[in-house]
Amino acid sequence: MKIAMDVMGGDHGPKETVLGAMKAVEAFQDVEIILVGDEAQINAHLTNNERITIIHTEEKILSTDEPVRAVRRKKTASMVLAAQQVADGIADACISAGNTGALMATGLFVVGRIPGIERPALSPTLPTIDGRGFVLLDVGANADAKPEHLVQYAIMGSIYASKARGIQNPRVGLLNIGTEESKGNELTKQAFALLKEANINFVGNIEARDLLEGPADVVITDGFTGNMVLKSIEGTAMSVFKMLKSALMSNMKSKLAAAVLKPELRVIKNQMDYSEYGGAALFGLKAPVVKAHGSSDANAIYNAVRQTRIMISNDMVTTIKTTIE
Amino acid sequence: MKIAMDVMGGDHGPKETVLGAMKAVEAFQDVEIILVGDEAQINAHLTNNERITIIHTEEKILSTDEPVRAVRRKKTASMVLAAQQVADGIADACISAGNTGALMATGLFVVGRIPGIERPALSPTLPTIDGRGFVLLDVGANADAKPEHLVQYAIMGSIYASKARGIQNPRVGLLNIGTEESKGNELTKQAFALLKEANINFVGNIEARDLLEGPADVVITDGFTGNMVLKSIEGTAMSVFKMLKSALMSNMKSKLAAAVLKPELRVIKNQMDYSEYGGAALFGLKAPVVKAHGSSDANAIYNAVRQTRIMISNDMVTTIKTTIE
Repeated sequence: MKIAMDVMGGDHGPKETVLGAMKAVEAFQDVEIILVGDEAQINAHLTNNERITIIHTEEKILSTDEPVRAVRRKKTASMVLAAQQVADGIADACISAGNTGALMATGLFVVGRIPGIERPALSPTLPTIDGRGFVLLDVGANADAKPEHLVQYAIMGSIYASKARGIQNPRVGLLNIGTEESKGNELTKQAFALLKEANINFVGNIEARDLLEGPADVVITDGFTGNMVLKSIEGTAMSVFKMLKSALMSNMKSKLAAAVLKPELRVIKNQMDYSEYGGAALFGLKAPVVKAHGSSDANAIYNAVRQTRIMISNDMVTTIKTTIE
Repeated sequence: MKIAMDVMGGDHGPKETVLGAMKAVEAFQDVEIILVGDEAQINAHLTNNERITIIHTEEKILSTDEPVRAVRRKKTASMVLAAQQVADGIADACISAGNTGALMATGLFVVGRIPGIERPALSPTLPTIDGRGFVLLDVGANADAKPEHLVQYAIMGSIYASKARGIQNPRVGLLNIGTEESKGNELTKQAFALLKEANINFVGNIEARDLLEGPADVVITDGFTGNMVLKSIEGTAMSVFKMLKSALMSNMKSKLAAAVLKPELRVIKNQMDYSEYGGAALFGLKAPVVKAHGSSDANAIYNAVRQTRIMISNDMVTTIKTTIE
């Protein structure tokens, strides 16, 4: 299988993407990678080009670019060309650590929606205390959603959880302000009624407070709320670690104790590190399009390839297509 | 001033409320408290009844009760009778640690809305790393909100921040999925346009990721999103502390280091403890109605009285009323 990668997207420049790509082809004999970006910058880090090819381009989409306009105007940007390999049938999937909005627009305009899917959904896997993780969707592909969209998210999330994460009969929960059926806003009340009838393992409403305890394998919400919850979790974890760090560095005694605790503290940081689960996949497109975190290091890029490879091997897109039909 | 307190609400039964009330009258010479609940249970803990009176009732609203129905049917429930003291002009404000939905219904039906306020808002103060804190509203008084409601929340939150928290010209932010003006769902886009024109210190959109860094003194959102964000922050902090605890208890070496770090770890827990900021006030009612956290101990109850006292002293309700007019 062939995976096209936008090399110019992440916060760390081409280096980490190139290193991650080399690690991936070494681990997976069936993977070929097309690196799209500035050839000179790629070659500065590429020490092994077995099953790795390069498509050279100097244009790139910036994190500050207005997504839709950038995708329409920068037709030779590395992100757009990577998606074009998929549209042209050359690559089976594409990955980028760049501008999230631009990648969603690229997915929509260049790769295209699966017929019958009204709205694609951006779907990261978040950590849970037990290490099992859960898929949260949508986290911002569409700010406004209708109840029927949430049902499609539930179906796509279920297929991903079972096909790509190996979870049998995955539990699907609806993110809501209370666990009772009667709770919620107009959207969740209507979605609840539809989800009960859908051909999924619907376990009812899930409260935001319980998310990291792992009450479901797939959690459904509109893109606005999903984005808020995702960023609240990230921001709180970051702030708590920051406070912890400053408390541990506050005096000589605490510094010594902190040094002793280093391995234990690393375990917690790893538990909260969702780059271990790969990137955020855009579900509902004609091929896998995966958003790696902007701050991805080589290992996070490697994990995104690993995840994309599983999505391709298990032909997730065809399953979504036939299920939606 | 007189404050009516529902004694039967919290998770810890009457004890903590009674202890908190005694602590409050001792600290504040101008405060009289009416304890509403089971007289025998109150007297079991009441060791000083100076400026404390009791209204006896055996009926109470349970945390499992359906809010609106409970308030309509249980006319002598401790929560309803506490609010009735306010409606009858006997008390200036009321406090409960009970069923949040029921307290919102009680506030609306028994105390009543300020004319011109379309929707009251539940408004807790959340911690920030710098210890300054911010008011978040609405966190669930109304699941669905219109742009005009968000403007009223902004005005009420500003008045609270300046009158009760002593912050001059408080910065008001709109919770949104990006900082640019063009970002958001239909609600936030329309609200942004209205907030720019409102007579407040509007600082634009705020991302959920940055909340605990303190980018604004007042953060405005619809009740559904606010509830999600509040609970995500609470849940994440709780989960991280849980992981930390289990890591620190994992072996003899880490247990020893943890013992040394106890004071530093307590500092972090206190920084994240928002009971220090009082309860969640319901803004937009004819008198202060304050929801103390369900798990409130005596100190949290004391803080809720302290906060309520400031709202009464500074006549916040009249300021809201004249500003809205």
